[in-house]
Amino acid sequence: MTDAITDEMDMDPIMSDGEHRVKRNFQQKVFVNRSLTLENIKCYGFDMDYTLAMYKSPEYESLGFELLRDRLVSTGYPHELLRYTYDPSFPTRGLVIDTLYGNLLKVDSNGNILVCSHGFRFIKGETIQNYYPNKFIQRDDTERFYILNTLFNLSETYIYVCLVDFFTRCTRYTNLLKGFQHGDLFMSFRSMFQDLRDAMDHIHDTGTLKERTLKNLEKYVMYDPNLPVLLTRIKELAKVFLATNSDFTYTEGIMKYLLENPAKSGNIKASWRSFFDLIVVDTKKPQFFAGGNVLRQVDTHTGKLRIGTYTGDLQHGTVYSGGSSDVICDLLGVKGKDILYVGDHIFGDILKSKKRQGWKTFLVVPELSKELQVWEDKKNLFEELKRLDVFLAELHKNQDSSSTDPEISSIQYRMKVLTYRMDMSYGQMGSLLRSGARQTLFASQLMRYADLYSTSCVNLLYYPCNHLFMAPPVLMPHESTSPYPISFTPSDLSVTKMRQKRNI
Amino acid sequence: MTDAITDEMDMDPIMSDGEHRVKRNFQQKVFVNRSLTLENIKCYGFDMDYTLAMYKSPEYESLGFELLRDRLVSTGYPHELLRYTYDPSFPTRGLVIDTLYGNLLKVDSNGNILVCSHGFRFIKGETIQNYYPNKFIQRDDTERFYILNTLFNLSETYIYVCLVDFFTRCTRYTNLLKGFQHGDLFMSFRSMFQDLRDAMDHIHDTGTLKERTLKNLEKYVMYDPNLPVLLTRIKELAKVFLATNSDFTYTEGIMKYLLENPAKSGNIKASWRSFFDLIVVDTKKPQFFAGGNVLRQVDTHTGKLRIGTYTGDLQHGTVYSGGSSDVICDLLGVKGKDILYVGDHIFGDILKSKKRQGWKTFLVVPELSKELQVWEDKKNLFEELKRLDVFLAELHKNQDSSSTDPEISSIQYRMKVLTYRMDMSYGQMGSLLRSGARQTLFASQLMRYADLYSTSCVNLLYYPCNHLFMAPPVLMPHESTSPYPISFTPSDLSVTKMRQKRNI
Amino acid sequence: MTDAITDEMDMDPIMSDGEHRVKRNFQQKVFVNRSLTLENIKCYGFDMDYTLAMYKSPEYESLGFELLRDRLVSTGYPHELLRYTYDPSFPTRGLVIDTLYGNLLKVDSNGNILVCSHGFRFIKGETIQNYYPNKFIQRDDTERFYILNTLFNLSETYIYVCLVDFFTRCTRYTNLLKGFQHGDLFMSFRSMFQDLRDAMDHIHDTGTLKERTLKNLEKYVMYDPNLPVLLTRIKELAKVFLATNSDFTYTEGIMKYLLENPAKSGNIKASWRSFFDLIVVDTKKPQFFAGGNVLRQVDTHTGKLRIGTYTGDLQHGTVYSGGSSDVICDLLGVKGKDILYVGDHIFGDILKSKKRQGWKTFLVVPELSKELQVWEDKKNLFEELKRLDVFLAELHKNQDSSSTDPEISSIQYRMKVLTYRMDMSYGQMGSLLRSGARQTLFASQLMRYADLYSTSCVNLLYYPCNHLFMAPPVLMPHESTSPYPISFTPSDLSVTKMRQKRNI
Amino acid sequence: MTDAITDEMDMDPIMSDGEHRVKRNFQQKVFVNRSLTLENIKCYGFDMDYTLAMYKSPEYESLGFELLRDRLVSTGYPHELLRYTYDPSFPTRGLVIDTLYGNLLKVDSNGNILVCSHGFRFIKGETIQNYYPNKFIQRDDTERFYILNTLFNLSETYIYVCLVDFFTRCTRYTNLLKGFQHGDLFMSFRSMFQDLRDAMDHIHDTGTLKERTLKNLEKYVMYDPNLPVLLTRIKELAKVFLATNSDFTYTEGIMKYLLENPAKSGNIKASWRSFFDLIVVDTKKPQFFAGGNVLRQVDTHTGKLRIGTYTGDLQHGTVYSGGSSDVICDLLGVKGKDILYVGDHIFGDILKSKKRQGWKTFLVVPELSKELQVWEDKKNLFEELKRLDVFLAELHKNQDSSSTDPEISSIQYRMKVLTYRMDMSYGQMGSLLRSGARQTLFASQLMRYADLYSTSCVNLLYYPCNHLFMAPPVLMPHESTSPYPISFTPSDLSVTKMRQKRNI
Repeated sequence: MTDAITDEMDMDPIMSDGEHRVKRNFQQKVFVNRSLTLENIKCYGFDMDYTLAMYKSPEYESLGFELLRDRLVSTGYPHELLRYTYDPSFPTRGLVIDTLYGNLLKVDSNGNILVCSHGFRFIKGETIQNYYPNKFIQRDDTERFYILNTLFNLSETYIYVCLVDFFTRCTRYTNLLKGFQHGDLFMSFRSMFQDLRDAMDHIHDTGTLKERTLKNLEKYVMYDPNLPVLLTRIKELAKVFLATNSDFTYTEGIMKYLLENPAKSGNIKASWRSFFDLIVVDTKKPQFFAGGNVLRQVDTHTGKLRIGTYTGDLQHGTVYSGGSSDVICDLLGVKGKDILYVGDHIFGDILKSKKRQGWKTFLVVPELSKELQVWEDKKNLFEELKRLDVFLAELHKNQDSSSTDPEISSIQYRMKVLTYRMDMSYGQMGSLLRSGARQTLFASQLMRYADLYSTSCVNLLYYPCNHLFMAPPVLMPHESTSPYPISFTPSDLSVTKMRQKRNI
Repeated sequence: MTDAITDEMDMDPIMSDGEHRVKRNFQQKVFVNRSLTLENIKCYGFDMDYTLAMYKSPEYESLGFELLRDRLVSTGYPHELLRYTYDPSFPTRGLVIDTLYGNLLKVDSNGNILVCSHGFRFIKGETIQNYYPNKFIQRDDTERFYILNTLFNLSETYIYVCLVDFFTRCTRYTNLLKGFQHGDLFMSFRSMFQDLRDAMDHIHDTGTLKERTLKNLEKYVMYDPNLPVLLTRIKELAKVFLATNSDFTYTEGIMKYLLENPAKSGNIKASWRSFFDLIVVDTKKPQFFAGGNVLRQVDTHTGKLRIGTYTGDLQHGTVYSGGSSDVICDLLGVKGKDILYVGDHIFGDILKSKKRQGWKTFLVVPELSKELQVWEDKKNLFEELKRLDVFLAELHKNQDSSSTDPEISSIQYRMKVLTYRMDMSYGQMGSLLRSGARQTLFASQLMRYADLYSTSCVNLLYYPCNHLFMAPPVLMPHESTSPYPISFTPSDLSVTKMRQKRNI
Repeated sequence: MTDAITDEMDMDPIMSDGEHRVKRNFQQKVFVNRSLTLENIKCYGFDMDYTLAMYKSPEYESLGFELLRDRLVSTGYPHELLRYTYDPSFPTRGLVIDTLYGNLLKVDSNGNILVCSHGFRFIKGETIQNYYPNKFIQRDDTERFYILNTLFNLSETYIYVCLVDFFTRCTRYTNLLKGFQHGDLFMSFRSMFQDLRDAMDHIHDTGTLKERTLKNLEKYVMYDPNLPVLLTRIKELAKVFLATNSDFTYTEGIMKYLLENPAKSGNIKASWRSFFDLIVVDTKKPQFFAGGNVLRQVDTHTGKLRIGTYTGDLQHGTVYSGGSSDVICDLLGVKGKDILYVGDHIFGDILKSKKRQGWKTFLVVPELSKELQVWEDKKNLFEELKRLDVFLAELHKNQDSSSTDPEISSIQYRMKVLTYRMDMSYGQMGSLLRSGARQTLFASQLMRYADLYSTSCVNLLYYPCNHLFMAPPVLMPHESTSPYPISFTPSDLSVTKMRQKRNI
Repeated sequence: MTDAITDEMDMDPIMSDGEHRVKRNFQQKVFVNRSLTLENIKCYGFDMDYTLAMYKSPEYESLGFELLRDRLVSTGYPHELLRYTYDPSFPTRGLVIDTLYGNLLKVDSNGNILVCSHGFRFIKGETIQNYYPNKFIQRDDTERFYILNTLFNLSETYIYVCLVDFFTRCTRYTNLLKGFQHGDLFMSFRSMFQDLRDAMDHIHDTGTLKERTLKNLEKYVMYDPNLPVLLTRIKELAKVFLATNSDFTYTEGIMKYLLENPAKSGNIKASWRSFFDLIVVDTKKPQFFAGGNVLRQVDTHTGKLRIGTYTGDLQHGTVYSGGSSDVICDLLGVKGKDILYVGDHIFGDILKSKKRQGWKTFLVVPELSKELQVWEDKKNLFEELKRLDVFLAELHKNQDSSSTDPEISSIQYRMKVLTYRMDMSYGQMGSLLRSGARQTLFASQLMRYADLYSTSCVNLLYYPCNHLFMAPPVLMPHESTSPYPISFTPSDLSVTKMRQKRNI
């Protein structure tokens, strides 16, 4: 087996010589929010879905979308909905559904609205205030606002937009503030959202999506020959565990494809389970990071749970169900700060493991490939935005506040155009991480809770196993020696201006 | 009246000519976390305590400390406690009391422990792990951890440290993990904390602290002649309200001293109430920013509440009690994003007004004077820390992970010494905002929730009334063009190293 | 149609002449806790399961038991469990599972333990105190104690007893206080209970029990020709609704059998829906009596829900899903006190409708047939118990408290024997309603919340439609002129006795 | 000491010979809800206020009323309120304030409204439905409904009625559904209730009521020479504790008066504390019966708490503060079912100790004196009510439901008159325990949770110390051999009647 792996690694063009490393491109980089030495990491944990197993986009989201759409039609929604197909250019992760008004919102970390759409129609500043007078939402109101945090939510996001679009434009229905009326029936945005959640639960409970995925792994799941290489390398130096919310059968199907793929990796015969010291399925994150559940053994022959609770020592290759982060630390004999946990779910994987357990965290952000690409291509737009910002400030200080300078308006208009152009380069709802110069809620959570982040976990392979990931020191505004805040004091005395005002 | 004010302003050396403005020093600056144009602000709100009214330090904290100490002794604590006096060099705002183990903690935004003291004894790395195996606390556990967020808490913080110190060293008491034993009596850290809270409530309920303050305003409250100037200037351009948790009698006593001080401001006869469009006492922040309470009128002759709820329009100079942020917006006819609220309480004033209501926020941080001073003086230590950090990374990449480089240890030791020296420059518990290169929980909340911050609200006077406060754009690590993250890839192939390892 | 019904009624031997009415036996009586005039009832509501549809016992419970047992074995429980079969003489409704110790408890309304079994082994006074020192449980602790309130719970009750019995006696397992140990596996009583709940959910979610019932209605559901007669009669005088937690498909299957049965009721062609003014399925009681859920129409052709919320007027024969008790009152135009609601679930149907909505209530208690039979047969035991009680009191007053009278012991022993004999006449866990002279929790809830109760709802037929059900006035002890409390004052002066005691 | 006590007991005319016992009147009886042998009681617990210490009525309630009234006026309520004085004939314990509509309600155990007043105006059937369409309240809605459970609440009840009365009749105020309007002020019933609660808290916090009581004990507290006799007698046979929510100073003042009263009991010199094995003040019932609080020693010289928690064994005569029912059982070495707890608060003393801890309970109901008196005097009214009830039922069965019998109406009217006359015999809000034939919420709780009840705890003295209190067996309606339910079957066939109806 070691030979096979060594061959595999030698085959890897990126690792084979120093020259390539120089060319290491953005896509392969791991980015750092807080400094971290791999040397201190004694244990690596991995989520499975969208972490070890990357789903092919938009094939996988399309599949989810179609299952949801068909389920909704089969529960009574109009057949016209079948005409909609998934459009990957529309939805972005991290958006918020306002179940009261049926809007899709993009917000910053404080709840200020950055973008708002109703169906496919984008709502602009003036009209937004009809819905949200302060252009602001209390996002703690989770009864009303639903955050679409995961990549699994993309199909859900899009179908909800399609529903709103359909009923808004369908002449049989009257548009009301909180929904649609058709004869005796009132279809509230809230009930449509509830129907969508029920459809999602149905697809999950019946296992349709998983079944379809397992039947056509080539179509839906990316195969990455570097993954077994990474896991092998890590396992020699540290403990490795898998902690997934998926059930055993699905986990086994996916992991065999990724780690025991003879068609791709030659004659590897090692079981996928041998790559891990501990495998836990049905973890029910985020509860897993709080009280957790009972830990049971899985019978790997039948996929069924053993009755009773496992109380013994760790046995290699055993698969468990349930448990909690505390139990895992006990079984593996490690402390929270010695663990680097790699996952894709900003809330369930990253925020919770960091905040409740003090784990080190690595967020997988597949969208980063595109984000980096666009950033590279359109950096000039951002630079121009920055220049205009400074210029605007200059203008500002030179004008009297009582008059409105037409030049200021024209600059502000130009800035809006630039922001829009930047946004559109990412997709119709713009970037996952920003809208013009402002960051999204998702971006701020990423910066607060993820120590590291990258397009894929496999990128860890491009760093030595004792690598020191180093973050720049964060300076507070008063500590900073940067030219900001630039002082835009008017040249004339403010006292003078105030006197003038008073005379008016 | 206008003449008087104009004179006042002319008298102000800072405002009188451009030259001084150039010299505008750090102490007078307003710092910016998120860009904000004063031109858009239609309404200014002010907290009173530690915002309009700056208490003299350490006189005021000493007074609070003595009242607490004497109360504890009168409720049965040993007379030996009377020997303790307030030491302003010890406590810092934003610390956390662990009521289980009696420790005082300084933590970062994720709950990692930066500094830990038990009484006056500082606990170091190895010993910390006895208490906190992961050097981490779940700070959501508010049953156990009590955050000392306000300047009012400083005396409380210090007396708790004195209590722990006394019993730890008193030979009559046996030291146990969760408290002290003396014969039949067990004094838990938790019960000591409870006694302290009760003493605090007693002082508050009996009004002793307020009474003593009002009797000697010169001793305890700073008088700033610029304050009436600021309020007058603002009121000509925007609406102004006062929203304080204090009661009417105390508010009137303090505000008269600040705004109707004939000894200081000459012949000003205007009532302090005329500086505000709306005055609200007994606001019960933070509830004020959620559901709030009933709004009642205060009879300004008797200081008593009028019965019933006020339902009419805003009347100038009327004083109200209770209410909520929503009611205030209605009465003043403004929206949340048009308000700049100035306060000193990171949670009750700033976080809540920002998160629940979308207000613009200005945090008053009196400690900033000292923080800025130390930062200027000791910036070289921080620069050296940064250089060592980079150097350490360089060393790191050039050594094999299996051996420990003595040079690395010596650098790490040097870094600890530098961090300690920096910390000590601020006081025994270090800076309010950082410990070496790491930021405190308080600093991270300040950056997230306060749009502006400064040593005093009066510093607004040094900016024109249409000033554009401009924040530098925040770049995420993958967007940044800075030299970070520096790539510390080992020159030898990591694959080679792995092979070697495998052979061992 | 009226002819058919009239014929039907003429066919009814019970109704056809006065003589039968005289013979009206206990089984046909409706009992009264609080007076109620049918004349004032403007609306009758019915639950379906165990109310309109009486399941055949023990066939139906046996079916449930077997499905549960087989499911548990298929999830890993030992095959030996298959040897157990349902024994209707063991379980009683209203028992409590203590999930901590695996015991089955019968308690009174204040939580005092009346009977306790561990598996099939009954635990006696002394041993009970090992588990429950005060012979008392805090039944509000619903995390620990699970009340088996419904007839559906009988099979669940029995399988849990079988599980505890099996593992207690199986030599492979070691008996511990909170469960069983087998090698590395610990099987807690709590986890066994959880497995049982999961198995129950599985059977419910997959619809197995419902499917099997619908396939063999003759075997599992009693057909009562009087039911359509009752509903017809009521509907002429008042409004009638059906409110069931079952889904539409199952409801339709059952109700067709009961109300459209051509084999039994001749050529009736009326739809079962025509018997009701309003039919609501999926009611989710008890939430139905609180906030409730969205009300949707059911497409009676497909059984699927219509999308959107129904907002129109009541349409006869329409089937709805969800809703709430408030919505039903609105649709039918009745107030809570005008409704007589007939159900079998003491908590979900009766307590909640009474306490939250002020409805009149009629509890169906099928066990009452047996209870009445045994009561008739064994009344002499109860009379003897009462006599002994009085005799004991007499003895008591004539003896000195410091000595123990052997006669008292022998009477107390005799009373225990009588209580046991009475209990055994009902079944192994005794009566649903009492244990000797003490009433069960179920009995006390029945008396508090059910205005009327009877073996079957069809018994309403034996009373005229303007019948006044009359309860005897309840007198409080101090109002009562009954011989109780009998004064058992010792004939010698208590003072004397006290003096004597003091001398000893 | 024993001599003194023996003398004392010999002096007691009631105990001195058998003849008196024969005359033992209703006022001296202890009534029994559930059988209980004193012989099994190993520990007696007593509440103080209204249990050991009986306050003189109406002097004490008047004092409370005046303090509340004056406080309200001093906080801004109109001076006209000072004209109101306490009227003991109006309020009854156990009433409910509806803070939404300002009504005072008397309800039965299921929330059905028995009596309703608005100020002093009684609201009748038709008008009640404007407020409460179903003549029913959801009394679980404790945000809206406030239950006045204790004798301390009587003054509060009455002042609220006065407030509503005053504003309703004052021409300056407009009557609205939820309060009163006067110019810009809206005085909601809810805010008036809040003001009342605040006034109550003020009186409690400042200790005014306690101070006034201690200054004039003769006026406000009944002295009963039998109390020390009872406690002495009990203490020889069982353990005795005092558990009061009052503080130490007040407790000592009251208990000295009751137990160390030289003016009354001669030369007794024993400390009041010697009557108890354990004294606990500041118990914070009902929390005392749940988690409880920290147990501290009270320094009986200073009345202050000792710092730290007491962890030693029970010391006789020591006074503690706080604690919990569990701690008390531990200190005294008794189990819950061995304790008879005597108190006056149906919720805080009786329901909680019974439901949470399984204690035996004895409810002191001072009102019972009057209730018994009226019951004796007016029993004939109740008998006539019962006769009319039966007669009504007879009439009922003989008439056709479609017609209304004038005789029925006249009987129903007569019954209303009788009910009203009975109610008025008790006071304006009627009896504590019933309204005509229906029992109040208070009565039903008394029957469920109090094992024994009596006018005073001293009545225990009239029973020997091994007395068996015996309750009559409670029969359920189907078990009863009483003439109820009388069968009022119409003589004509109901079928016939239905046929006739159908023809119409």
